Amino acid sequence: MEGFRFSTELTARFNETDAQGIIHHGVHVIWFEIARIAYLAQIPGGYPGLVETGIDVTTIELHIRYSEGVRFGDRLRAWTRCSEIRGARLRFEYAVENVESGARVADGWTSHACVNASTLRATRVPPELTEALQRLEAD
Amino acid sequence: MEGFRFSTELTARFNETDAQGIIHHGVHVIWFEIARIAYLAQIPGGYPGLVETGIDVTTIELHIRYSEGVRFGDRLRAWTRCSEIRGARLRFEYAVENVESGARVADGWTSHACVNASTLRATRVPPELTEALQRLEAD
Amino acid sequence: MEGFRFSTELTARFNETDAQGIIHHGVHVIWFEIARIAYLAQIPGGYPGLVETGIDVTTIELHIRYSEGVRFGDRLRAWTRCSEIRGARLRFEYAVENVESGARVADGWTSHACVNASTLRATRVPPELTEALQRLEAD
Amino acid sequence: MEGFRFSTELTARFNETDAQGIIHHGVHVIWFEIARIAYLAQIPGGYPGLVETGIDVTTIELHIRYSEGVRFGDRLRAWTRCSEIRGARLRFEYAVENVESGARVADGWTSHACVNASTLRATRVPPELTEALQRLEAD
Repeated sequence: MEGFRFSTELTARFNETDAQGIIHHGVHVIWFEIARIAYLAQIPGGYPGLVETGIDVTTIELHIRYSEGVRFGDRLRAWTRCSEIRGARLRFEYAVENVESGARVADGWTSHACVNASTLRATRVPPELTEALQRLEAD
Repeated sequence: MEGFRFSTELTARFNETDAQGIIHHGVHVIWFEIARIAYLAQIPGGYPGLVETGIDVTTIELHIRYSEGVRFGDRLRAWTRCSEIRGARLRFEYAVENVESGARVADGWTSHACVNASTLRATRVPPELTEALQRLEAD
Repeated sequence: MEGFRFSTELTARFNETDAQGIIHHGVHVIWFEIARIAYLAQIPGGYPGLVETGIDVTTIELHIRYSEGVRFGDRLRAWTRCSEIRGARLRFEYAVENVESGARVADGWTSHACVNASTLRATRVPPELTEALQRLEAD
Repeated sequence: MEGFRFSTELTARFNETDAQGIIHHGVHVIWFEIARIAYLAQIPGGYPGLVETGIDVTTIELHIRYSEGVRFGDRLRAWTRCSEIRGARLRFEYAVENVESGARVADGWTSHACVNASTLRATRVPPELTEALQRLEAD
């Protein structure tokens, strides 16, 4: 997908449907998170490695735009990229498409803050993480 | 809370926590929905009454700003209002506060489209719904 | 309900429904947990107090019998009791009824082990917990 | 795994963890369901095909035995089989193992009733379904 280099594949689960017969709109938050974690897993050590350095990442803002209902069993491709790193903040963007039809089902972004894992106070994105993330988008 | 007339109370559930020890950021979507449904329940017939008229409401956009972590057992007050009705669109705003501390833990908004329940095509917000919603905010 | 002294009330949430139009059968596990935690909250200090003494409780077995579908908005009463304490094991029993109709919608039981919170090794149910639980059922 | 011919692979999601740092015990119900649906997908037409014939399947009983905690990111193999067909009833058995360690993390079973999708009354397992399920276990 235009502007994205990384994606991960998912299948919509039956328990994720609701009585409207389609996937509940809260589930997309989980898909974004799965995509973001898979993206970060490309970095040596990944998210667990980050946590080991005493840094944790909290979500501070979330935006989702829903384009099309997703049905049980639909195969989805969740694209993501880290689109901005500034101070303690990281921003990720997402686009989820239906593999079968190619249609975009949702897109959105999340904003995160790096925090000291013990004090939970905001802390600058560590330079090694910034470099690792920039390498992912530059390659 | 300033600007809101309606709220509903909730308690954060243990299964809603994650390994960071606080409520997962996907759960707030559910709190917004619970608040919205409770708000609509003030209208005679409520959401089920709406569906009986052949109208359904789908979520088309969602925004959440997280201010403070929520812990298992925290009692929360979720404020909501319908802030805009235009064409087929409805917009709801939310603010969730910790009952104990009074601190705001999150706020946000959702945007919805009225659709014909059988064709799923967008349809104007029915005038009776518009009136009922306006009465709620005017009283 | 026959044999139970304690209950807590719940409302079935919209996001808990699935495409069959009723509450997904995985949600009952959460209702059992909510009832169990509310039951334990009767003990001075409750579950958090227990954890502070260095004890944690893990679930080792679960059984649910589903009698009747639950619909979005149904008000439920979840009854629970601690029915057995032996060695490191605790057993809880549950019955969930529809408040409106009085019908039983599900019942079941869970079995738990007390563990040392740091080593996660099984440890005898602390005598103070045994006494507190017996008092709850004796009163 | 001894006694099973069919399995499907899963990865434990971050949002499935709870504040004890491991996957919440309610998530196993979903893994069982995913395994059961994947198993039924081997039948021409699968579960959707069944529903099209006017038959639906409801869960009437569930049993889980938890052997070992599962952590975020753990890869799991969920084995399943249909172990009994009698009248309107189907029974499935499950075993979930950690792919990395080979350790069993949980096992259990579910019992289901075939119902007429419109009346929701119990109805005999259709002979074509019985034959298809027996073929899966005989091959």
